[in-house]
Amino acid sequence: MEPTTVAPPPSDRTRIRRLPARGAYDRPVVDAILDEGLVCHLGFSLDGQPFVIPTIHGRLGDIVYVHGSAASRMLRHLRGGVPACLTVTLVDGLVLARSAFHHSMNYRSVVLLGAATLVESEEERMAGLEAIVDHVVPGRWPDVRQPNATELKATMVLRLPISEASAKIRTGGPVDDEPDFALPVWAGELPLRLAAAPLVPDARLAAGIAPPVCVTDYWRTRAAR
Amino acid sequence: MEPTTVAPPPSDRTRIRRLPARGAYDRPVVDAILDEGLVCHLGFSLDGQPFVIPTIHGRLGDIVYVHGSAASRMLRHLRGGVPACLTVTLVDGLVLARSAFHHSMNYRSVVLLGAATLVESEEERMAGLEAIVDHVVPGRWPDVRQPNATELKATMVLRLPISEASAKIRTGGPVDDEPDFALPVWAGELPLRLAAAPLVPDARLAAGIAPPVCVTDYWRTRAAR
Repeated sequence: MEPTTVAPPPSDRTRIRRLPARGAYDRPVVDAILDEGLVCHLGFSLDGQPFVIPTIHGRLGDIVYVHGSAASRMLRHLRGGVPACLTVTLVDGLVLARSAFHHSMNYRSVVLLGAATLVESEEERMAGLEAIVDHVVPGRWPDVRQPNATELKATMVLRLPISEASAKIRTGGPVDDEPDFALPVWAGELPLRLAAAPLVPDARLAAGIAPPVCVTDYWRTRAAR
Repeated sequence: MEPTTVAPPPSDRTRIRRLPARGAYDRPVVDAILDEGLVCHLGFSLDGQPFVIPTIHGRLGDIVYVHGSAASRMLRHLRGGVPACLTVTLVDGLVLARSAFHHSMNYRSVVLLGAATLVESEEERMAGLEAIVDHVVPGRWPDVRQPNATELKATMVLRLPISEASAKIRTGGPVDDEPDFALPVWAGELPLRLAAAPLVPDARLAAGIAPPVCVTDYWRTRAAR
């Protein structure tokens, strides 16, 4: 039911303490979760107050990129190299037990600790932006107009190396107490998935432009790079 | 396209600075997002390091409840009333523009600042646990075995009042630059939703126990209470 932990935790801070059997530190496991999650939640402290802000990310090898407006208060604070936490969570299903206590959720999550730094080189900035667009819609980047100088100036790209990360995964059905199996209560798993609904073409879409395959065949699981 | 902001921000810390037209501070807007999101991301700092941990929540009126093992390091730290941030994000769709720069995401998010405190009274503890189960599967609580004394002892329930919260919402299609409309690029919205896949009954489910309506008709949008 739980993945086998074959890699040691990269640090004491990322060691899974609560239900350690659910923990994993393997890069392929971590990368697959980072790649499938559409958004991450970035945590940082400002004047002693923690903030958790959702944002889009993209991974390229050992680096997670995030981006935003050059005027963003969050990014301007983060780029100074302050301690940060980037978390990605995928909800896979609801676990319905016979007792309230044993209800649970099937999920995969990654917690990545580190410090984000500003990407300065134009080449890496462009690679980071491509990774982010490609993360959201694999295959979209070559089809669209690339960022111009004005847009690049208005955009900040930050990098966070994957050096201190852990994954936590729960799979499978409920684990009930033995006496509860006699109760007349339905138990099992309600799997959940992110599904694409019918496309909504832009109001000004010109006639004869069909949606590309990366849009019509959209799905979230992505092969690792 | 954007909601009208009819309520003032409850504090300077929750005022939306980036794209303020996307901000909302109305309780019904905030509550609907808190109620629809299956998980929240809890942020707190420990020894100067921010952590962002996914967890299940439940709302009852002006209070958001979270729970976990009485041994949980996170909860034991949080119950001391340290500054915390609870964020809920719903991804509603991908916004595909003609330029890379104008790609975006439709989403609804809530950022709630405050301090969590330990729920001491047995009555409120039970109400908080019911709110959490009912949050995940509305209507499930009365059907299952209630928590017993041992389970209650092993469970910590924390409360976080909704006093300093803001919502941020994006809806609608792409907003392209005028010259880009001439490009032969498909543009529009790819709506996404959380969908239930076929149920997986527990391996030890007794014959003749059908899944209840709250499970067979599962959907996430919940009426506010």
